[in-house]
Amino acid sequence: MRLREIQFVEHLRTLAAKSARAHGGGELKLNQGIGDDCAIFSAGRSHDFLVTTDLFVEEIHFRREWQPAHSVGHKVLTRGLSDIAAMGGTPRLAFLSVALPRRTTQRWINDFLEGFLALAAEHSVMLAGGDSGSSPGGFMADIVLIGEVPRGTAVMRSTARAGEDIWVSGKLGGAAAQLQQLRSTAQGRARHRKPGTSNPYFYPQARVEAGQALRSMKLASAMMDLSDGLSLDLLRLTKASGVGAMLEARAIPRAHDASLDGALDGGDDFELLFTVPAAKSKKVPRQIGGVPLTRIGEITRRQRVCIVSAGVERPLPPRGYQHF
Amino acid sequence: MRLREIQFVEHLRTLAAKSARAHGGGELKLNQGIGDDCAIFSAGRSHDFLVTTDLFVEEIHFRREWQPAHSVGHKVLTRGLSDIAAMGGTPRLAFLSVALPRRTTQRWINDFLEGFLALAAEHSVMLAGGDSGSSPGGFMADIVLIGEVPRGTAVMRSTARAGEDIWVSGKLGGAAAQLQQLRSTAQGRARHRKPGTSNPYFYPQARVEAGQALRSMKLASAMMDLSDGLSLDLLRLTKASGVGAMLEARAIPRAHDASLDGALDGGDDFELLFTVPAAKSKKVPRQIGGVPLTRIGEITRRQRVCIVSAGVERPLPPRGYQHF
Repeated sequence: MRLREIQFVEHLRTLAAKSARAHGGGELKLNQGIGDDCAIFSAGRSHDFLVTTDLFVEEIHFRREWQPAHSVGHKVLTRGLSDIAAMGGTPRLAFLSVALPRRTTQRWINDFLEGFLALAAEHSVMLAGGDSGSSPGGFMADIVLIGEVPRGTAVMRSTARAGEDIWVSGKLGGAAAQLQQLRSTAQGRARHRKPGTSNPYFYPQARVEAGQALRSMKLASAMMDLSDGLSLDLLRLTKASGVGAMLEARAIPRAHDASLDGALDGGDDFELLFTVPAAKSKKVPRQIGGVPLTRIGEITRRQRVCIVSAGVERPLPPRGYQHF
Repeated sequence: MRLREIQFVEHLRTLAAKSARAHGGGELKLNQGIGDDCAIFSAGRSHDFLVTTDLFVEEIHFRREWQPAHSVGHKVLTRGLSDIAAMGGTPRLAFLSVALPRRTTQRWINDFLEGFLALAAEHSVMLAGGDSGSSPGGFMADIVLIGEVPRGTAVMRSTARAGEDIWVSGKLGGAAAQLQQLRSTAQGRARHRKPGTSNPYFYPQARVEAGQALRSMKLASAMMDLSDGLSLDLLRLTKASGVGAMLEARAIPRAHDASLDGALDGGDDFELLFTVPAAKSKKVPRQIGGVPLTRIGEITRRQRVCIVSAGVERPLPPRGYQHF
C-alpha cells in the first residue's frame, strides 16, 4: 500500500464516520465501518438483504475530459442505487473500491468523493468500507451496495406474466441525447455541469422512492432498472420471465430532444421498467415523488419483443447501449 | 454491455448455480444469486455479518508474464478470505467484479475462474454475483466477501492491551522470498506453478480455520491478517489499539529462504497476527489444522513498535510491502 492509498482510505474513514453519525434507522445496523479487516453489520429476521456490485471504468463508462469528477462520483453510486431500487429495496451500506492513476490530482479525488457522498447523504446510505489501489491505466471504481426489503417482497425480473401491462418511470433517451450533443459540439463539453433533471447524462436519478412504492403497493409483478436501454433490458426481462412483449411506439415517454431510437436504445436512463397485472393497472398513480409513470405496452405469451408504430408491427432488435 | 461481457456473466451464472447446489448450511441463506438486479440473502439474529472488499490490479498486484491465471484467481479470493479469517468468521458469499482487457483470451479467463472457484469450493463459499466490463488498461478484479460470525464475537484489531502476548500463524516471508527469486531468475518465471505450501507467492493459504478456532476458544483478544508485511501491519494493529509492541527477532518464524527483513517487511503472507492475554498464552495450541502458532513478542504501553535482536533494542520502521 502506497502512501497515497493509505491517505485515501484515511480520508474515506473520516468522511464515513460523519456519514454514520448522520444516518441510521432500519433493521440493518452497522457495528464497525472502515478501519478493520471487515465491516460488521447485524440484522434481523423480518428483512431480506440485497447486494449489488457495479464497475465504472474510465474510457468505457466515462471520459475524463467530458465529465467532471463530481458527476463521476454521483454516477458511480447511482448505478448501485438503481439496482436496489429495481428490487423495491432501501439502500443502506456502500463499499467503494477505486483504482487511481498516478496522475490523479487531490482535487479530482475530493470532487469525486463529494459527488458520491452528497448522493449517499440524500439516500441515507452509509459508506461502510472500501479499498484503493494504484491503476497503471485509467480510473476505475467498483461500487457495492447492501440494501434491505421486508422479507419475501423483493421484486424480481423473472416474474412477469402474459397479459400484464408494461410500464416505465420517467422519460427515456435523455442521457443518450445529451451524450450525442457532447460528441458533436465542443461547446457542450466545456459547459459546467450541475445536478438537475435537465442534465440526465451527468446527474441521473435512481428511482428509489418509486421502486419502494411500487413494491409496497403490490403493483409491480416484475421490475428491473434501465441501464443499457429499453430494447436490450426489456429483452432481458422477457427472457428471465419466459414471455415476450409488445410495445406501443407512441406511448413511450421521450425526454426532451430524444428520438424514438434514442428512447429505445439509449443507455444510462436509470428509470424503472416494471409490469403490472391488467386488473391493477388503473391503480398505478400518474406519478410518484414527481416522477411520471407511463404504460408502454403489454407482456405477450409469444416469446419475442415487438413494437407497434403507426399500426405496423415489427420486431425490436436489442441494440442496447454502446459504451465508448 | 458488450457481447463478451454478457457471455462472461452468463458463464459466471452457470458456474455459480453449480456452486450454490454444492454448498449451503449456516444462518445466512442465499435466495437469489446471479441473474437479477441484486443478489438476495436472508439472515437471523444470532450472527453478525462481515463484509470485505479487495482490489487486485495487473502490474500492481501481479504480473501476467509471471503468474498463471489459475493462481491469479486463487489469490484474488485469498485476499477476501483472509480478511474474514482475521475476524474469526466464516466466509459465505462472494461477489466478483472483473475488468477485462480486449486481449484477454477465453483460456486465460477459464483458468482464472477455475483457480477462483476451486478455492471457493474448498471453503464452501457461494459465488452470488458480480459484474464485468472492458478495461482499456490491464486486468482488474474486485472481490467482495460476506461472512458470518456468532453475534458480538468478531475479533477486532483495536482491542489489544499492554502486557498481552503477540502471536503469528505460519511462517513469514515466504511469498517475498519467492517473488525475489522470480525477479532474479528467468528460470523461476517459466516454471509451472502448482498449489502447495512450497509455493506461497502463487498459492497463499487464508487461515480461516485458525481464525475461527482462536475466536471460538476465546484466545485472541485482537487479530488482523498480514497482507502488507509484519512491520507495517503490526503498526496498524498497535495504532488502532492505542498501544505499542516489542518483537523478539529470534522468535519470528521464517519461511524457508526468508531473511529476517523478508519476514518483517515482505507482503502477501496472509498469516494471522493476533494478541493473547498473558494468562491464556499457555492455552494456545502449537498448531491448528497443521498451521504452527508462534509467540513473537509483547504489547507495550509505550506507543511505538520495536524489535530486540541479540539483546539490542531498535525501532522497527514500517517498511511494509512494495508492489511492483
